[in-house]
Amino acid sequence: MSDEEVALLDAYWRAANYLSVGQIYLLDNPLLREPLEPAHVKPRLLGHWGTTPGLNLVYAHLNRVIRARDLDMMYIIGPGHGGPGIVANAYLEGTYSEVYPTIGQDEAGMRRLFRQFSFPGGIPSHVAPETPGSIHEGGELGYALAHAYGAAFDNPDLVVACVVGDGEAETGPLAASWHSNKFLDPTHDGAVLPILHLNGYKIAQATVLARIPEAELDALMRGYGYAPLHVTAEVGEDPADTHRRLAAVLDEALDEIARIQREARAATAAGTEVPRQAWPMIVLRTPKGWTGPREVDGKPVEGTWRSHQVPITDARAHPDRVAELADWMRSYRPEELFDATGRLRPELAALPPAGQRRMSANPHANGGELLRALTLPDFRGYAVEVAAPGRSSTSATTVLGALLRDVIRANPTTFRLMGPDETASNRLGAAFEVTDRVWEGEILPTDEHLARAGRVMEVLSEHLCQGWLEGYLLTGRHGLFSCYEAFIHIVDSMVNQHAKWLKTTREIPWRRPIASLNYLLTSHVWRQDHNGFSHQDPGFIDHVVNKKAEVVRVYLPPDTNTLLSVADHCLRSRDYINVIVAGKQPALNYLTMEEAIAHCTRGLGIWDFASNDQDGADAGGDGLPDVVMACAGDVPTLETLAAVDLLRRHLPKLRVRVVNVVDLMALQSESEHPHGISDARFDALFTPDRPVIFAYHGYPWLIHRLTYRRTNHHNMHVRGYVEEGTTTTPFDMVMMNRLDRFHLVADVIDRVPALGARAAHVRQAMVDERLRARAYTREHGEDPPEIRDWVWPY
Amino acid sequence: MSDEEVALLDAYWRAANYLSVGQIYLLDNPLLREPLEPAHVKPRLLGHWGTTPGLNLVYAHLNRVIRARDLDMMYIIGPGHGGPGIVANAYLEGTYSEVYPTIGQDEAGMRRLFRQFSFPGGIPSHVAPETPGSIHEGGELGYALAHAYGAAFDNPDLVVACVVGDGEAETGPLAASWHSNKFLDPTHDGAVLPILHLNGYKIAQATVLARIPEAELDALMRGYGYAPLHVTAEVGEDPADTHRRLAAVLDEALDEIARIQREARAATAAGTEVPRQAWPMIVLRTPKGWTGPREVDGKPVEGTWRSHQVPITDARAHPDRVAELADWMRSYRPEELFDATGRLRPELAALPPAGQRRMSANPHANGGELLRALTLPDFRGYAVEVAAPGRSSTSATTVLGALLRDVIRANPTTFRLMGPDETASNRLGAAFEVTDRVWEGEILPTDEHLARAGRVMEVLSEHLCQGWLEGYLLTGRHGLFSCYEAFIHIVDSMVNQHAKWLKTTREIPWRRPIASLNYLLTSHVWRQDHNGFSHQDPGFIDHVVNKKAEVVRVYLPPDTNTLLSVADHCLRSRDYINVIVAGKQPALNYLTMEEAIAHCTRGLGIWDFASNDQDGADAGGDGLPDVVMACAGDVPTLETLAAVDLLRRHLPKLRVRVVNVVDLMALQSESEHPHGISDARFDALFTPDRPVIFAYHGYPWLIHRLTYRRTNHHNMHVRGYVEEGTTTTPFDMVMMNRLDRFHLVADVIDRVPALGARAAHVRQAMVDERLRARAYTREHGEDPPEIRDWVWPY
Repeated sequence: MSDEEVALLDAYWRAANYLSVGQIYLLDNPLLREPLEPAHVKPRLLGHWGTTPGLNLVYAHLNRVIRARDLDMMYIIGPGHGGPGIVANAYLEGTYSEVYPTIGQDEAGMRRLFRQFSFPGGIPSHVAPETPGSIHEGGELGYALAHAYGAAFDNPDLVVACVVGDGEAETGPLAASWHSNKFLDPTHDGAVLPILHLNGYKIAQATVLARIPEAELDALMRGYGYAPLHVTAEVGEDPADTHRRLAAVLDEALDEIARIQREARAATAAGTEVPRQAWPMIVLRTPKGWTGPREVDGKPVEGTWRSHQVPITDARAHPDRVAELADWMRSYRPEELFDATGRLRPELAALPPAGQRRMSANPHANGGELLRALTLPDFRGYAVEVAAPGRSSTSATTVLGALLRDVIRANPTTFRLMGPDETASNRLGAAFEVTDRVWEGEILPTDEHLARAGRVMEVLSEHLCQGWLEGYLLTGRHGLFSCYEAFIHIVDSMVNQHAKWLKTTREIPWRRPIASLNYLLTSHVWRQDHNGFSHQDPGFIDHVVNKKAEVVRVYLPPDTNTLLSVADHCLRSRDYINVIVAGKQPALNYLTMEEAIAHCTRGLGIWDFASNDQDGADAGGDGLPDVVMACAGDVPTLETLAAVDLLRRHLPKLRVRVVNVVDLMALQSESEHPHGISDARFDALFTPDRPVIFAYHGYPWLIHRLTYRRTNHHNMHVRGYVEEGTTTTPFDMVMMNRLDRFHLVADVIDRVPALGARAAHVRQAMVDERLRARAYTREHGEDPPEIRDWVWPY
Repeated sequence: MSDEEVALLDAYWRAANYLSVGQIYLLDNPLLREPLEPAHVKPRLLGHWGTTPGLNLVYAHLNRVIRARDLDMMYIIGPGHGGPGIVANAYLEGTYSEVYPTIGQDEAGMRRLFRQFSFPGGIPSHVAPETPGSIHEGGELGYALAHAYGAAFDNPDLVVACVVGDGEAETGPLAASWHSNKFLDPTHDGAVLPILHLNGYKIAQATVLARIPEAELDALMRGYGYAPLHVTAEVGEDPADTHRRLAAVLDEALDEIARIQREARAATAAGTEVPRQAWPMIVLRTPKGWTGPREVDGKPVEGTWRSHQVPITDARAHPDRVAELADWMRSYRPEELFDATGRLRPELAALPPAGQRRMSANPHANGGELLRALTLPDFRGYAVEVAAPGRSSTSATTVLGALLRDVIRANPTTFRLMGPDETASNRLGAAFEVTDRVWEGEILPTDEHLARAGRVMEVLSEHLCQGWLEGYLLTGRHGLFSCYEAFIHIVDSMVNQHAKWLKTTREIPWRRPIASLNYLLTSHVWRQDHNGFSHQDPGFIDHVVNKKAEVVRVYLPPDTNTLLSVADHCLRSRDYINVIVAGKQPALNYLTMEEAIAHCTRGLGIWDFASNDQDGADAGGDGLPDVVMACAGDVPTLETLAAVDLLRRHLPKLRVRVVNVVDLMALQSESEHPHGISDARFDALFTPDRPVIFAYHGYPWLIHRLTYRRTNHHNMHVRGYVEEGTTTTPFDMVMMNRLDRFHLVADVIDRVPALGARAAHVRQAMVDERLRARAYTREHGEDPPEIRDWVWPY
């Protein structure tokens, strides 16, 4: 770079830093036209300076290479605390004023820009959905690099620059994310340029990667499969030197990316392949809070953890600190950066790229703008035939696999299937008829379905599956994450953050809806035959139900055709978190496809084939059943129907209504959830006053919670998972948790009044049956044949 | 090793493998004395063979070095699927028969050993609490190495051998765990010997670390700070060669560990220090399912993912497969291993170490046996003086910090404080008066409270904090994990596993109680002034409440003295997961220490100072209040009292009772939780029929859930966090979620019948007050002074 180029770039950096400090501190006097007074300073100083100058430095340099190479580039920053810097850059590029016209490119606009930051009614202190150019909320650390890779997949012309802070680098998910390069195909995917930005400190102390020898860090990055390039700036050094070194390193990195892509793509075109190569990455060391106050109150601040938040605190009460703040801000020489109206000077405004090349305006960062609906095959075509309810068995996920296979075939670059090594185990193997697992590592002749390109992504890290998929969805594509039910809790906290993102974007007009985050939770709590207690946990549903009702949907399809209908619905939806829980083991089919569609559309309904409350309706006189047997989930539905069979045989006069729930949110009131049914409809299904025995897939309390405001809620008796389990047979498992047919029959007898002596006899018979089943199981190691082979006999 | 030693070691390995296969397959005929028949084979084959022979190999070799060096060694295995191997070794060492006398060292015992595995009424398929020598449940992957380091801390004479499977190595938590060596002090801590056991496959496909070049893997391990030693065994090679190489490498590794410790300890004794050194680790590559069937149905099995579970399936229905199984088992030559009675031959029984040197009998693996109660200072000595309720403010966690400082001082080797870089931020900085953050990386002159040894462990990985602490507790020590409330969800799934462990161990007589896992959740949802929405989530409480009631406790101390009382109680407790939620910001004090102790002992109670329902009790005639204002949590308590103040001023005749809840589980029925209060007591506190306005710290539904079975539950009106928030002022935050004083007053007016026109006027005034507060906040950027400075005025 010429001296002039360096000077301009440095001025641009100063402008971003100036605007960053202004956002943290100032209510007024944004251009320091008058002497800074305490009244110009915000009363509560809330923000994070420490990471910001480094992020601004990288931003300015990326602008240079975008212009020089006409790059399509996104900027993802792990240290989301650097909110003011990213906002400042979006403002400098004009994007901010385009999406928020009241924040104009003049002094009044700058005043509003400063005032709104971390201010009531304003914008958050972190990078957030409100920030143009962002797909990554700053807050919880660890997911930046996984998001970056997710964005790069199937975007061959995109380069995602991703800053990893040295705090974030200590997290588990980030430590695993470096290995994402084993899943990125240089031919069909874009590139990720990781920038490990070490400023040496977390909130209050040193960080691991900043305090190991450079050779050790270099080995670590090489071990992760990267070719590291190092740039270090020290406190007090002339930034011009840093600019030159960083520019050279960035050019080298981008040349390398271009070379790797060129060679790989040429090889692919020629039908050959090149071995996996080490992608470039940059280790950038800059002082924390660089260009900020060197010392405050006699203690070093620049280059230490004391820069983390607000270096000069409580300025209003200390006029000398106001003066220090003014000196700090004037050190950026704002008069050289902004003209008399407050507008960025033209020679600086000419530096960033224009239009969609601006990182703040890159359309990938508002993925809904790029989103195209999936081409979906007609799910009815995959229906299993159901001649009579409850007679034939299918593995629901196996059939779903065929649908997903054809989704993949019809959408070869916009749909991915994620899972921690469970695609086959979860019976979705049909996908491998049309695609493979993407794998850039060594492939052996004995391997099956590993290839350099593929739609299936398997890594034994739920964090990576989730992070990749989030990045993929946020940039306008589609996907499904299939996971063992218990272990989806591993990403609880990531789900929180994604749900918060979705909730917030719904309130931002310029953010376009994105495809929903779809979970298929299988290998569920009731069928951990191989694994036992450690693999049993249905609580993810409870976790998501705490999120805003507008963004969460939970489905418990009881059989294959309902699963197909639900899956189709989820793949078409936008801006939701859809949780589908469905077993992979062969299970009874109940509904024809037309019935399944009707049932799923309603969300829940009476299963007439299993109910006898309308037989001889005049018997009871009121047209109501004696008991409602409700069920949600495949195993609870099976046990409920088997219980109904026992009731019919033993207590034939009892009028039983069976209600199956596939859309769990339908149980709630209309006021609580958009899928909630009216109280009148709820009463019509569950009656105003009859006992309801509810067999539920998960923790029982959730059903009480969802039906809390319903007329008949005090008659709800819920069975579900109560944290009992081990490696045992499927029926022993439901017996341990009192969800089995025998317990359900006993529950009915305990709840329906005045059933008489015969019922007491039946109740004792159920206890005997249970003991007999248990004894058989312990003797033979499998469930009794009459239980294993039970089908709906009517 | 001599040829004879190799032959003996190999025979021991074969014995373990034989017993492993027998557990997976056989119901009977354990010594194959008669031809194997289908009836001898289990009907359901549930287990995992693939990882087992490798684990058995390592076990046999570790036995050799324990004997040779008289080592105190534990064995932690990540691939918990290898349950049959670890059980087999415990059986070979005699430990199994000691703790389970019915599983004797003879043919009948062996039959029971085989039959019980993965069998109804028997033992789980994974390593589990039932497995002697284990502190690490096999199931969810990723935590083995963190557990190993946690076990090694403050156990200077212990060596923890830790097998990391290549599936587990892909997880985030494990990827971060390698860096634990920056937190292990070679002078005062023991050693961890990581063994990365690569068999090349997960469930169904290749693994990342097995498919990168050895040089890259070597660089990765060096980058993590280890000196890797490589041992590779190929399919078909003579195991004797592997034995020799593995033995040599193990000797080298243990020599290195001894050298590092010797040098560090000599330096410490001399008052100097040596630089951090690379600890040895072993990369062991063995074929998956080594020694198992080479092929089944014409497909390669040994050395492929097809060995993962049960290589020969469905044997009962296929007599030829029964023959293959018999051939496989006979290939271990059981007649050379066991005598006619089924007892291990004496020359083999002489190989493992004896007594507590056996890894299956190491007392550290049953930490409760070693547990000693903490020496605790009298927490009353830290009390803040409370001359009148609600007048003075203290930062509760700052005062707790002083208590923790003295706990550390009094227990210099058995208590650690964990947190992701938040000890100071969470105001526990008093700890640094007596200790430092442990840090083996570079230390700079400007650093504060970093040292080679220390009681405070800070790493920006909640996974590591949790994993280390679990390992530390499970080996009989004590600790506390302080964490930002929102981000504790990161370890949701780890908490599940620990809760399951605790629940299970309570039912195993030989497992002794361990210290509780104590969480201090601070920087909570209501005071994320700097951070906003991404840092707000109070749902961890909901998560733990789904676990078994016997193992979970949740406390919401409203002020400093109650926090001290609760903390003392938690530090004394055993086998619980204690969740304490307490703010770090200065907040009002309500109770003297004596009052706090009484209140915490009851768990909840009427605050007379804030109630006026007994004033002129004859007024209403029934002695009951018009409304109960309940609160749980510091911020809700503040808003409740401020609302009571408003009610007194505006509606002085309204009889208000204030109930504060510190022990959340007390709300439940006695039948639901051991801390639950009786219905009579609940009715006495909350009345049978008066409206209850409940201001709660977290998601409102939990209060409904906990009080679901109470008489007055239909009158509960709960306010809490409803997923609204951003970076704003504290009072704006409570207003956004309708938890503020003005909303609470309006709730009272809406719920108490017949309050008349004056109340309608007051209700409108509350709306006005709210709008005024919001306007003030948006104008000034801080809360109105009368809100900020409010104190209890009576």
